[in-house]
Amino acid sequence: MPKNSNLMIGIDLGGTKMMAAALDAQGKVAATRKQPTPANLGAEGVIREIAAVVAKLVKRVKPRKVDGICVGAPGAVDPKRGIVYHAPNLGWKQYPLAKLLGKQLDLPVTVDNDVNVGAVGEFALGAGKGARNLVAIFVGTGIGSGIIINGKLFHGSFGAAGEVGHVRMVSSGPLCGCGGRGCAEALASRSAMEKIIRRSIQMGRESIIPRLLEERNKDRITSSIIEAALAANDPLMLEVYERTQHRLGVLVADVINLLDPDTVVIGGGIAERMGEHFIAPIRETAFRHVMRAEGAEQIRIVPTALKELAGSIGAAVLAWQRFAHLNVGR
Amino acid sequence: MPKNSNLMIGIDLGGTKMMAAALDAQGKVAATRKQPTPANLGAEGVIREIAAVVAKLVKRVKPRKVDGICVGAPGAVDPKRGIVYHAPNLGWKQYPLAKLLGKQLDLPVTVDNDVNVGAVGEFALGAGKGARNLVAIFVGTGIGSGIIINGKLFHGSFGAAGEVGHVRMVSSGPLCGCGGRGCAEALASRSAMEKIIRRSIQMGRESIIPRLLEERNKDRITSSIIEAALAANDPLMLEVYERTQHRLGVLVADVINLLDPDTVVIGGGIAERMGEHFIAPIRETAFRHVMRAEGAEQIRIVPTALKELAGSIGAAVLAWQRFAHLNVGR
Repeated sequence: MPKNSNLMIGIDLGGTKMMAAALDAQGKVAATRKQPTPANLGAEGVIREIAAVVAKLVKRVKPRKVDGICVGAPGAVDPKRGIVYHAPNLGWKQYPLAKLLGKQLDLPVTVDNDVNVGAVGEFALGAGKGARNLVAIFVGTGIGSGIIINGKLFHGSFGAAGEVGHVRMVSSGPLCGCGGRGCAEALASRSAMEKIIRRSIQMGRESIIPRLLEERNKDRITSSIIEAALAANDPLMLEVYERTQHRLGVLVADVINLLDPDTVVIGGGIAERMGEHFIAPIRETAFRHVMRAEGAEQIRIVPTALKELAGSIGAAVLAWQRFAHLNVGR
Repeated sequence: MPKNSNLMIGIDLGGTKMMAAALDAQGKVAATRKQPTPANLGAEGVIREIAAVVAKLVKRVKPRKVDGICVGAPGAVDPKRGIVYHAPNLGWKQYPLAKLLGKQLDLPVTVDNDVNVGAVGEFALGAGKGARNLVAIFVGTGIGSGIIINGKLFHGSFGAAGEVGHVRMVSSGPLCGCGGRGCAEALASRSAMEKIIRRSIQMGRESIIPRLLEERNKDRITSSIIEAALAANDPLMLEVYERTQHRLGVLVADVINLLDPDTVVIGGGIAERMGEHFIAPIRETAFRHVMRAEGAEQIRIVPTALKELAGSIGAAVLAWQRFAHLNVGR
C-alpha cells in the first residue's frame, strides 16, 4: 500500500456524544462512528471510550494504517501543549488529553477546540471550500465560532478567539450563562429559543410544541421539534424562529464588519436540519446591516455542508496538518 | 552616508488636515509637518498639497535621501492597486492616488487606510510594541479600527476589516451615519457625545459647555472642550463621558471575545488628550465583560503612545515594509 493511503482520525468530542471520522490525504472519509460520551464516568472513562472508538475504526479500515488522532474538545484548549484547560460539560480542568490518550493508543494525539475543528472541516472540505478568510458560526446550546485567517486556523493570543456568542447585542437583555446580559448566546441560540418558547407557553400562549414534545417523547425543543413546529405553521414557533434569524443576521453583520471574511458558514443543529430555509433570512439581514463601500453580496453566507461530521472531519484535517504537514482539501 | 540613513515619508491624510513624518530604518522620526488639507480644491489640489509637503520634508532632511511614500487615506482603499475607492470626506471615488502622486514626486508611492496606518504605527513603535495580535480603536468623529494578526496588518478579504464602529450595540438605538441604528459610532464617538450634550442643553440641562465654546470661540465640542468641562466637574459632561467609557468598554470586550488580541490600543482625540483618565474605566468594563477561562488581565488595554503622529509614523513603517522589506521597530 502506498504511504498516502494512510489515515488520520478526527474526533468531535461533545458533552453527550462523540463523532469520529477516519480521513485519507485526499480528503476522502474512509469510516465514521458515533457513540455516546460517558461524561458521568469522569475523564478516565471518557478517554477509555475515545480509545475504544479509535480501536474500532482502526480495525474497520484495515489494512490501511492510522497515523494520528486529533480531538476537538468542548472547551478552552492549549493545542501546543495538548491540554484541555476547562471543559465545563465534561467537568475537566487542566487535563493533559493529548499525552494521556496518546499513551493509551500509542499514536500521536493533538487537540483543539470543538468549534475550531468544525470551522477547519467546513473550510477544507465543506461549505467554505475555496475561502481564504472564513468564520464558521455554530448555533446550538450555545453560539461559538471558529476563525480562519489567510487560510489558517486562528487561535488568538490566548487560545480564546471566536467567542462570538458573547458579543453583547442588547444593552440590558436576558441573562447569559457567562453572567453577562444581552449576549448573542442568550438571545439567539437554540436554548435561548427554547427558553422564550417555554416562557410564552407558561404565560398562556397557544402552540403545538407541547403536543409535539409529548408525541415524540422529548424533553428538549430539539431541531427536529423546531422543524415539525415550523412545518405545522405554529405561530409562536414562526415568531421565535424569525426573531432568532434576525438576531443572527445582525451578529453575522457584526462579524463581517470587524473581520471582512469572504465566507461565513452557519452550522449547528438547526442549520444542519433546515439548511437554506434557516440561512436565507440571516443572509438578507446581514447584507442589510453590513457597512462597506463595495457590494456586500460578494460575501458567501452559507449553511454547513458537512453537517454533523464537520467537527470530526475538521479534526482529521488538523491531524494531517500537524503530523504530516499536509493541507487536505486545499 | 550609509544606505540605512535613508528615509521613508508617511502621510496621514485627513479631511481637514494632513500630518507627515519622515522615518529612518531604526524607527527614528527625522522630521514632521502638519498642514491643512485643501479638500475644497478637489483631488488635484490635495495631491499638489501632499507633493508640496513631501518636497518641504525632503528639503528639510537633506542630505538624507527619501526612498518612498505611503499615504493613509480616510476611506476604503485597495493597497495592491494603490487606489482610494471611496473617501467621502474628500469626495474621492476610484482615485488612483499612488500612480498620480508617484508621477508628481517621481518616488514610489503606496496607500492604505488612515486607521490601518494608525494601528501599524502603534504596533511597530507605539503603545503596542511587542504585541503579536493587536486591535487599535480610534475614537473621533467616527469609530474605526486597524487589526494586526500574527504581526501583520490584516486587511480582510475585501479591504474592509476593522469596521468596529458599526457593531450594533443596542437593537434600536440612535441613527448612525451608515443608515443603521445603535452602531457603536452612533453611541460612543466624539460626535455622538457632542449630539447628546447639545440635545440635553437644548432640553434645558445646565452645563458649562456653552460658555466654554463661546470663550474659546469654537463651534465643535472638541477634546479640549471635553477636557475643560471635565476639569470643571460639569455634571452633564461627566455623565456623557462615563456613558461613553462604558459603551467603549463593552465594545472592547466584544472585540476581545471575537479576536482574542494581546493588545488593544485606544486612540483618537480624547484618548490623546486624556490618556489613562479616559482608558482606565474602559479597561475595567472590558475586563468585566470578557468571556474566557483564563484571566483577562493579561490583555493590555492602553491609550495611544504616538498620539497625533500614529498615522504618519505607521504609514512610513508600511513604506519601509513595502519598498524595502524591512520591519521597522520590531
